[in-house]
Order: sequence, then structure tokens, then C-alpha cells
Amino acid sequence: MVTKAELMDYAPVKGCMVIRPQGYALWEAVQEGLDRRFKATGHENAYFPLFIPESFLRREAEHFEGFTPQVAWVTRGGGEDLAEPLAVRPTSESIIGPMYARWVKSYRDLPVLINQWCNVVRWEKATRPFLRTSEFLWQEGHTCHRTEEEAEAETLTILEIYRDFVESTLAIPVVPGLKSESEKFAGALRTYSIEALMSDGRALQAGTCHNLGQHFAKVYDIQYLDSDGQLKYVWQTSWGVSTRLLGAVVMVHGDDRGLVLPPRLAPTQVVIVPIPSDKEAQLVARGLAELWSALGRAEVWGRPVRFKVDDRTEYTPGWKYNEWEMRGVPLRLEVGPRDVKSGQVVAVRRDTGEKTALAATDPGTLARAVSDILEKIQDNLYERARRFREANTHEASTLEDIARFMESGRGFVRTPWCGEAGCEARIKEETGATLRCLPLVGDWAESTRGGAGAEPGGRPEVERARGRCAVCGADARYLAYFARAY
Amino acid sequence: MVTKAELMDYAPVKGCMVIRPQGYALWEAVQEGLDRRFKATGHENAYFPLFIPESFLRREAEHFEGFTPQVAWVTRGGGEDLAEPLAVRPTSESIIGPMYARWVKSYRDLPVLINQWCNVVRWEKATRPFLRTSEFLWQEGHTCHRTEEEAEAETLTILEIYRDFVESTLAIPVVPGLKSESEKFAGALRTYSIEALMSDGRALQAGTCHNLGQHFAKVYDIQYLDSDGQLKYVWQTSWGVSTRLLGAVVMVHGDDRGLVLPPRLAPTQVVIVPIPSDKEAQLVARGLAELWSALGRAEVWGRPVRFKVDDRTEYTPGWKYNEWEMRGVPLRLEVGPRDVKSGQVVAVRRDTGEKTALAATDPGTLARAVSDILEKIQDNLYERARRFREANTHEASTLEDIARFMESGRGFVRTPWCGEAGCEARIKEETGATLRCLPLVGDWAESTRGGAGAEPGGRPEVERARGRCAVCGADARYLAYFARAY
Repeated sequence: MVTKAELMDYAPVKGCMVIRPQGYALWEAVQEGLDRRFKATGHENAYFPLFIPESFLRREAEHFEGFTPQVAWVTRGGGEDLAEPLAVRPTSESIIGPMYARWVKSYRDLPVLINQWCNVVRWEKATRPFLRTSEFLWQEGHTCHRTEEEAEAETLTILEIYRDFVESTLAIPVVPGLKSESEKFAGALRTYSIEALMSDGRALQAGTCHNLGQHFAKVYDIQYLDSDGQLKYVWQTSWGVSTRLLGAVVMVHGDDRGLVLPPRLAPTQVVIVPIPSDKEAQLVARGLAELWSALGRAEVWGRPVRFKVDDRTEYTPGWKYNEWEMRGVPLRLEVGPRDVKSGQVVAVRRDTGEKTALAATDPGTLARAVSDILEKIQDNLYERARRFREANTHEASTLEDIARFMESGRGFVRTPWCGEAGCEARIKEETGATLRCLPLVGDWAESTRGGAGAEPGGRPEVERARGRCAVCGADARYLAYFARAY
Repeated sequence: MVTKAELMDYAPVKGCMVIRPQGYALWEAVQEGLDRRFKATGHENAYFPLFIPESFLRREAEHFEGFTPQVAWVTRGGGEDLAEPLAVRPTSESIIGPMYARWVKSYRDLPVLINQWCNVVRWEKATRPFLRTSEFLWQEGHTCHRTEEEAEAETLTILEIYRDFVESTLAIPVVPGLKSESEKFAGALRTYSIEALMSDGRALQAGTCHNLGQHFAKVYDIQYLDSDGQLKYVWQTSWGVSTRLLGAVVMVHGDDRGLVLPPRLAPTQVVIVPIPSDKEAQLVARGLAELWSALGRAEVWGRPVRFKVDDRTEYTPGWKYNEWEMRGVPLRLEVGPRDVKSGQVVAVRRDTGEKTALAATDPGTLARAVSDILEKIQDNLYERARRFREANTHEASTLEDIARFMESGRGFVRTPWCGEAGCEARIKEETGATLRCLPLVGDWAESTRGGAGAEPGGRPEVERARGRCAVCGADARYLAYFARAY
């Protein structure tokens, strides 16, 4: 589907892909939506080098162990063998840390709130378009703070930005939660993520935020002189989402006929297809002109509706319907001589296939009708995905339960867990499901609304379980989400 | 200056730099300005892989020879030695070509108008912040066309976009021209460039556009079935500008006190510095509030004026003046108790240091006064750079003349040239100056105004010389620009 819809193509380099214009336009929409939110919460963009000397990566042992198997190494440059191999960044903590050590001197320099949009490389054996590729595009935020509480608040602020963007723009419901020790980022104190469910029943980690504690600060010696005259290590966070989000859009909303794009994300929200008529060409032209003028004034979510007229003469209307359906354009308007005569256009929703005749006699009325439908499509896609997730979230109280749900291959399993890594590993071994997250509960996001400068609120609450661990039978501490994941 | 103004910092990787938020914000402004122009002329963005297999690069011999000495090679990945080394892209013709061969089938698929924003690596021995670094950020456009004329028109359309953007937004006058055979892009039919003069008298190639002819199309087999039933090779172009443009801004406009940013580019156009007063704090607060309300409604070039209030209490006004001057903010407004009493603010221009008292009693009047000054600063920066270039462009008719001008180290030399590579090489050898370009004359840009779909206009005219070649004394064909260059 992703190749047919021209979102991507396979590159002649193992595990890499080309993001074609149709796909890149979606990434631009993701960038626009997130970048605006990052900047509104005080973050700035910067750019750090692609190459990281091996010795820098080695300075943080846990991190190094975690990433080395996936690193691509540059060993020759400018016609000579290099004295020290350079890693192509798999993530940038180990190159950004040393820079922050140079820049941060005083408490006045804090917080540091920097993000970068870039490419990273992680050598993968088994790849899959958008979901897992050796090179991918992402953003990675890296921040420094005075206190642990402030770092925690930053981590949650970003988690909430991710949740809000993915749910409201991509129309994908997510479970925000805390990662287990074995699933957290190499070197982090705590990792939070948002977890989504694809339509094949597999989970996808759609974004992660790490409270790095003082771990990297100590390794890279990032210290500041506090107002009390003491030299202290900073508290750090890092966080990212990637082109993987586009894979989620494809897998959550797509159907047999191709992509289905949520209107808030879609580069083209409405396509107008004229139904040509040799006899009544003028009539169709008039209808088109009226539509153009109505759509030209239409707004949705406070912005102009993005529409296109497909007036190519070398293709039939039917061919065009198929093509635009394949490409996932949310709404199609058809206008033929009969429609013009009866003062209407036919609107066809991509999500439901539903056809409606809209009155086209008053441009204002038509404009409002179109934006109403776009809003309905956005809501329906989210609701449909949410219902699918509800229907595919199971309660399991034994290892056998989990195994049974995983054999049928679908969905999240919520299960009581004692908190021991051994039991988590046992579930993975016997069912193929990994611990996706410990879901956050209550109004954890409330404390983040004020942005990066808000009063830090402390650690969020995770869902507690009553009863016994599904594996060892000991008292359960958490209600954990398990699933087979991409 | 670039480190002090926090535009960049040196990275711990040889030849690489970190672009800090102050610098990256300028790059975002460049991206915004160019991307808008590219899209308005029908181009779309995409993303191609970072890695290029050695065999792909080798397929085009001339291109391979040209770039290989500068390539960084990945030889290990995922813990194993690779069967084939992968080049980190120095430019992407050799990875994009094979993709286009797959995508282009029919004349209906043409033109292909694709651009990508990305990082590239060219191993450099001697590096210099922004102007020459081993890794840099750029955009590279790659297009396919049906005819040579259309490819030529595309090349000139982009050249005109570059000229317009660099002159109108960066306030840097440029000479658009044709590169000589020895200076053109490896594998191109013709290369055009815009050449700027830095304030130290050296030239900088600020952007290049290549008409690639059918050279790469034949190597990578990019053929289409034309409407006449014939299989034909496409005609291609490629073009790019890089973070080097930021180096040009620094070097053209900067002065002893730091950066000077053209207002159209500046992320912050106006900084407001209150002059605190213990006794009359309320008065200053009122003045600030009035200023805020006036600036909030100010527009320049059809957009809201970008302003900041620096109300930090830990620094003195004098300290702040220095800092904002270092950072190049075009206009500073000072407001103290005496100003508020007399209903005015003091405006200080960064380009000239000129101080004016502006009436602050009517918000509308003040808003207009501020945008007037910003426009004047933009114009003045351009004019100043243009006058500097005029004063440092010399007419030379002999090799001795050229050598003399180059010894004094400054500027462009215009000289009659026979067109032979030998004479060009001799000038380089004896004076250190390279042939920057053969300037275009007449209304070459006129034919490009219609965008990528416009009627192709053919090749532009270059300036012809009367008299004799400065080196060999034969009849001169061209009036060539020479200079020492970055």
C-alpha cells in the first residue's frame, strides 16, 4: 500500500527507504504540528554533528552497550583511514552532552531547551517501511534542568504534547505510560512512552520521553554553579518521535482501497473531480468555478481548507476516484452537468464511502458543509480506532490467558504484574508479548499545561493492580499493558 | 564572532560544527524563504537515503572522480564488515538517478520537480565555520524534463529564485553567471552560480544550478516513452544552497561589534530594553506596556514585526545593549522614565548606530515609524554591500593588473578572456584568483518569471568583451569575473 500510494519506495541500500513527495508531505505536516508545540513551550532548534567519535560513545557504558550493535561506522574519509572510527549517530546524547558541558556554567544558563530535526541510523536486520528502517528521520529533544522535579515536569510536558498531537491530528488513540526497567532507554532514569494499537493487533511505540536523571551529566561533566555557590550536576531529559508515526497512520486508518488520511494531517483535504460532458462542457465549467469560489473561502480548524481540482483530461472520473482513494484524500466532491442543473455537488467520504448531495447554490453554505464533513471524518477516524482498541484490549490474570490472547494475535493485554523483571521476561518468552507500559492514571497531564516553566508537579501515578501477578502469583503492584509490538 | 554571537560552536569531530539555536533560527528563516519559493514554482520535497553504495557512485566516472577524494566511507555496520562500502552522500545525483529511472515511464510523468533538505558530508582539510565544513546542511533540487530547453528554463528559474532571495532577504548583492568548463559541477553540461563579495574582498559562491543535460540520464538509464512513441532520455537539472549562506550574512554585514542581521532575515527584528528606575518603576512599566501594544500591531513586509522585551533584572542596560548588538538585532528601542514623561522612545539602528527619538504617544504612529526604520535598514544594508562591491570591482586588461589587484587582496577583477582553459589556469597559478563566472546580461531572468511551467526561453546571454585576452593576447570572447574565493 505504501508503495502504491507513492508514500515511499525501497532504496537500493539495504534497510533504507526513499520517502517520496506524497509521504514527505505527511512528514512536513507532522513537523509543522510538533514544531509549533515545541516552540510554544519554549524550545529552540539546533543542529549537532552526524558523526560521533567512538570514544564519546564509549564514555557512557550502558548507553554504548545498548546502541553499539546497531551502529554504522565510518572508518575512511578524505582518502585515508581514520585514526578513530566515527559512529553515524543512532541518537545524539553522547555528542550533545559534551557540548552542554561547555555551554552550561551557571544556573542562569538553565533550563536548556533544545530540539533537533535530523536523520539517524540504526542498523536493522529485519526492516519494514516507516516502522523500522536503518535510516530514519526524527526529532530529538535534549534538555538540562536545575532539579529532578523540573526535568520530570519537562518529560511529562513533552509526553502530553505527543499524546495531544497523535490523538488530535493523527486521530490515533494512545496509552501514555511508564516503561519497565528492561524496556527503558539505555542510560535513562525513567522512560515514558505513548503506545498505539495497529489494525493488525500489534502495538507500536509511537513516541518516547526520557528523564535521564544525572546519569549523562556525570559522564559528560555537565555542571553549573547554583545560586547558593555550589557546583551541581544538571538534570536532563531527551525525547523523540520519528517517521514511524507515518507508518502508524497507514496501519491504523488504511483499508483495502488504500490510505485513509485524517483531514487535519492530509496535505489535500478535498479533491474535486469534474465529470466531463462534451455536450454540456460549459455547465460543468460553471459548476467548477462555483465550487472553486466556495472552497476558496472554506475554513476548518481555523485554516483554509486544502483542496485540489483534478481536471486532467487523460483519465476517466472512475480512474481518478480510485487514485484519490488510494492516496487517502478524506473527501471527494464530484460535479457533473446533472449536479450543476440541480444546484448540488456529490460529496463522498473516504472513511465511510458515504455519498451525500450538498447544496451548491450558496458558497457560504457549501463551505460550511465541507468543513463540517471534514470535522466529522476526523472524529470518526479517532472514534473508530478507539473502539477497535477497546475491542482488542483484554484483561488477563494468568500466563495462559496472555498466551491465548497472543495466539489469536490481537491487541493489548492488561495484566497484574508484581514488578519483577523475571516475570516480565517469562511472559515475553512464552507469549511473544513485551511489556508496553504501565499506564498513567489520573490527571497527570494537568500539571504540564503551563509549559516548560510551570511549577513542577512530581512523578505521575501509574495504574495499580489488586490481586496476584499473572506469572508468579505474588502480590501484584501494577496493571501492565503487554502486546506483540513492532 | 560566530562563536561569541552563539551562532555555532566547534564540534569535537574534526571539521564539523554545531549550529546553535541563534544560528539555526537563521537557517530556519532561509528554509522558510526558499521553500515557499520552490513550492510556488511547483516543486515538492522528498527524502533520499544518506548512504550511497560505492558501485552507484562509480557508475558516473567524472562525477566519481570529482567527489571521491572528499567522501566519508561507512565500512562496518551492525557489528559486521560490509560487503560493499557505503558513501555518506556528498551530493545525491547517484542515488536519485536510479530512483528516477524506476519512477519515470512516460512523458506524462514529466516534469519531475523534487527537492530535499538534508545534511551532506565532504571531507575537508581546511575548514571554516559555515563557509567550509565537513558536514553541512543544504537543499538539493533534482529535476527531470522532456527537453533541453525546459531543463535550461528550470535551471534559470532556480537561479533567479536564488538571486532574488539572497538579494532581497539576505541583502547581499550577487553576480549571476555561467561557470567555466573547469569550474563547473562534475558531470554537468553547464553550471550557473551566484557570486557574492565578502567584506574581506574574497568571493563566495552562494548558490549553484546545474543543467545536467542527459549525462546522468544515460548513466542511470532514465528514459520515458514520449507521445510520439519513442523512448527518450530525460534532461536533468540539480541545484543547491547551503548553510554557507549564513557565513555570507556574517561576513558581508558584520562589524567590530558583532553580527548585523538584515531585518527580513532576523528572528528578532526589534529588542526593547527598559531603563530601570527604582523611584519611577511604575512609569517605566507604563512605557513598556504602551510599547508592547504599539509593536503588537506593527507590521513590516506584510507580517507582524518580530520583537522581544529584555526585562532581565540581573543585567544592566549597557550590558544588554552590547549583547543585542553582538547578536545583530536590527533595531533597539530604549525606554526610561524620562522618555515616558516626554512621550517618546529612543530608537537605535544596528547598521548605522544612529539614535532617533520616536513619538510614542500614538501606537499607530509608532508602529509605522518602526516598520519604516526596519525597511530603511534592509535597504541600507543592501546598498552598503552593493557600494562596497562596486568599489572593489576592478577592470583589468593584463595579467599584471590582475596580480596587482589580488596582491592588495581585494575584490572582483573583470577581465577579457579568450575562453581557453590554459589562460584561466595561468591566472589562477600566478594570482591565486579563480574564474568566478561569466556574468549574465540582459533580461535573462525575465523568461523565468512564469515558474517551472513557463515557455522555455533558451540559453541566456553572457557578457562579451572587446579587446584581447589578458593572458594570451588573442581576441577576447568573454568578460570574466576573477577573484580569490572561499
